[in-house]
Amino acid sequence: MSNPAVKPRPLPGVLLFGLLPVALWFIARPLLDPIPPLPALYASVGLSILAFLATIHLVPRLGPVFISAHLKGRDLLKIYHDPIPESMGLVCAAIYILLLMLFIPFAFSSSIMHRANGSPTPEGINIVDFPHHQLSVYLSSLLSLLTATMLGFLDDVFDIRWRHKLPIPIIASIPLLMVYYAERGNTHVVVPLPLRALLGTLVNLGPLYYIYMSLLSTFATNSINILAGINGSEVSQALIIALSVVFNDLLYLPWPIGFRVPLHLLGNKSEVEFGGVWNAGMSYGSRELVERHLFSLYFMLPLVAVCVGFLYHNWYPARAFPGDTLCYVTGMAFAVVGIQAHFSKTLLLFFIPQIFNFLLSCPQLFGLVPCPRHRVPRFDPNTNLLHPSKAIFEKPPSQLTTFVLHTFATLGLTELTVHPASGVILEATNLTILNFFLVRLGPMNEKRLVQVLMCSQVAGSLVAFVVRYGLAGLVYDGDRR
Amino acid sequence: MSNPAVKPRPLPGVLLFGLLPVALWFIARPLLDPIPPLPALYASVGLSILAFLATIHLVPRLGPVFISAHLKGRDLLKIYHDPIPESMGLVCAAIYILLLMLFIPFAFSSSIMHRANGSPTPEGINIVDFPHHQLSVYLSSLLSLLTATMLGFLDDVFDIRWRHKLPIPIIASIPLLMVYYAERGNTHVVVPLPLRALLGTLVNLGPLYYIYMSLLSTFATNSINILAGINGSEVSQALIIALSVVFNDLLYLPWPIGFRVPLHLLGNKSEVEFGGVWNAGMSYGSRELVERHLFSLYFMLPLVAVCVGFLYHNWYPARAFPGDTLCYVTGMAFAVVGIQAHFSKTLLLFFIPQIFNFLLSCPQLFGLVPCPRHRVPRFDPNTNLLHPSKAIFEKPPSQLTTFVLHTFATLGLTELTVHPASGVILEATNLTILNFFLVRLGPMNEKRLVQVLMCSQVAGSLVAFVVRYGLAGLVYDGDRR
Repeated sequence: MSNPAVKPRPLPGVLLFGLLPVALWFIARPLLDPIPPLPALYASVGLSILAFLATIHLVPRLGPVFISAHLKGRDLLKIYHDPIPESMGLVCAAIYILLLMLFIPFAFSSSIMHRANGSPTPEGINIVDFPHHQLSVYLSSLLSLLTATMLGFLDDVFDIRWRHKLPIPIIASIPLLMVYYAERGNTHVVVPLPLRALLGTLVNLGPLYYIYMSLLSTFATNSINILAGINGSEVSQALIIALSVVFNDLLYLPWPIGFRVPLHLLGNKSEVEFGGVWNAGMSYGSRELVERHLFSLYFMLPLVAVCVGFLYHNWYPARAFPGDTLCYVTGMAFAVVGIQAHFSKTLLLFFIPQIFNFLLSCPQLFGLVPCPRHRVPRFDPNTNLLHPSKAIFEKPPSQLTTFVLHTFATLGLTELTVHPASGVILEATNLTILNFFLVRLGPMNEKRLVQVLMCSQVAGSLVAFVVRYGLAGLVYDGDRR
Repeated sequence: MSNPAVKPRPLPGVLLFGLLPVALWFIARPLLDPIPPLPALYASVGLSILAFLATIHLVPRLGPVFISAHLKGRDLLKIYHDPIPESMGLVCAAIYILLLMLFIPFAFSSSIMHRANGSPTPEGINIVDFPHHQLSVYLSSLLSLLTATMLGFLDDVFDIRWRHKLPIPIIASIPLLMVYYAERGNTHVVVPLPLRALLGTLVNLGPLYYIYMSLLSTFATNSINILAGINGSEVSQALIIALSVVFNDLLYLPWPIGFRVPLHLLGNKSEVEFGGVWNAGMSYGSRELVERHLFSLYFMLPLVAVCVGFLYHNWYPARAFPGDTLCYVTGMAFAVVGIQAHFSKTLLLFFIPQIFNFLLSCPQLFGLVPCPRHRVPRFDPNTNLLHPSKAIFEKPPSQLTTFVLHTFATLGLTELTVHPASGVILEATNLTILNFFLVRLGPMNEKRLVQVLMCSQVAGSLVAFVVRYGLAGLVYDGDRR
């Protein structure tokens, strides 16, 4: 542990110490008169700051404990061989879930609710908080998160093979589905305008809706898990997606000011107006929409906090690895808010890089192209640069594989090495978004590559917002049941 | 793995295969007309049989996986050194919690409830099921169980020292306490008759009640955990306590027949009457009492099932060890039903051997007497018998220790070795109930010792029932708020 590159990263003590009273003020705010309009949101912000502080302090503290319990790995893309603690997403998940548990009285306690309801009504929609009966929905979400954490950690301990673990997140979605069923959850979906002549405005998907929900959790979990391998990749994706969800939620809350986005410049007929106490942002007066997006915020704010805290230690060169646990818990958190707050289509738009990576990976996932155990880029210790790693064909590929790979190569998604005489494909760069970046932009170091990945994630979110609020008006009206 | 003593125990295939259709019939029963009076109870019995089958099949199947993940130990009280899979209580806990999750729609789904309520009312109390609003209480209990499982498994993986792990179960009780608070749970206790002149009929304990609840979970967990060390000890304790709780619950359900226990023979004024649709057993017409004990049954029946399934493999000579995970999850399950179904005092009565063991252990737990890492009895490989193990005094004990040990020795609880000349204590048998049995009954083999332990647990439960239904009438009236 004498290597300075793997010593715990020093913490800015004064800054962190100064955050503690801020956190405590936010947590105490719902108990102080005059009660603010959204008291539980204050507590959520305060608990999130605590989550950040706990994560940034506990991760380096617990690293040696993880190493001594065989939860360690070496960094494949470095010159040193020192063991790095693995599965430390468990610390993040534990802090995240513990603080979500401690949040229960703030959001659901009848005494706080009662005091808040007793305060003089402000103008516009008076959303004090979401109603008491949502407690079981909240608890089922916590159960799913905790199950996902457990399964992620078991995956780390027992090292389950990736083909076997694809369906595991479905187990974690069971509490969600069971309570959704018991509460007679809505299984209707709004039909896009062009299909309404055929199907009507609403279609009841029935059991299909449950399958859709469990697949959403599997997708969210695995799509983050397969876009991994370099320092900071998993947690930075999760962070940017969480921030995008938070930003989207904020559009629906009652704000003291109102403003509009000039979307007619993008060719949309209607303008997007948000903010303003009277119409509670984009909720346009729907109390239910405000409640849903509050619910989402309560799950996303602490997630952002633990991701920031963990990224500090997972940033290049990484002092801690997230393990599968982090991917499981963040993926399940996104699935939870997408399902419970009913914006799963919007959520999927924030996964554009992951969807691209998944589609790109399909030939390897489904056996057309050989899939090595690790598809991370190749590290050149002399230049400290990453190069695209390659899948090697032991025997000549089939016609279908050859066709797919030539198509991918024409699109610039992969680089092929062909036999100079026969034209048979000998090698192809591994089909991941990371190797794609290296193929398109040339070799670069690991820190640069994760920055490129983060930029693509931010760009994906910008596209998502344009699609959601610019183009969705072409196929959907305002009906959001 | 060629040693026949540690090969997986063969399963009675035909018998188990025959149980599967029985389980499925019970699970399907609530969906078939005519709906029975307690439909969810049928599903609970069916799911419990499934839990038993899953446990008895999966434990030997997963043993090698646990061994290869370093979750193994050798049996200290055997002549062979083969590795035995450790922490296999995790399998039990996972099956237990998964089936409790799958049970949610049966107990809480509005469609099943609706159909059941629509059926013609039988005579007497018509308890179809406990009401919908209890879903959040059920879910918070599941969260506590899952947290306990997680913490137990972390304890196994990270091997936390016992002094540090004593307060860990308090964390697992957080979801329970938070939801209890949010739901404005009852914090009043009924005052015993002799104290009523002073305190009135009910006393509001307020915050103290929450401390009591978290201590109950700590006690239930740790008291099973410290009465461990021989094959089958942990799981047999849990099994007998769970069976006692089940038996107690059954007294409160509506039965088609009514009968009375002639308690006046024991000197009690009132007779104990149970059974009968009209008064719903000992609930004497209280719908709430019936609901509480149904709630308890829903948690206890699958627990009995997984304990039986696991005991089959943990029985002498053990093929699988439970680890701390089993103690955590069973202890938390008892705390959950004691708290949520409001019979914590009765529950504590079922822990008589554990309380005895705890009191006996106090001098070692609190540092008066040296406490070795393992206090299990000493194994003599030549005779295959267990002898009391001893704590050795490196330096002469203090006056207080000498006094305590002489008192214990006079009561027959320990055997001392004193210096023949000076009378200074040199050794004392370790202060556990297992060593106590060996001191009183002489050396015996391990199987015999666990049988003695089980007999003492059964005897404790019998005493508990006499105290609860015979003597409690002297200090409590029928008021059970």
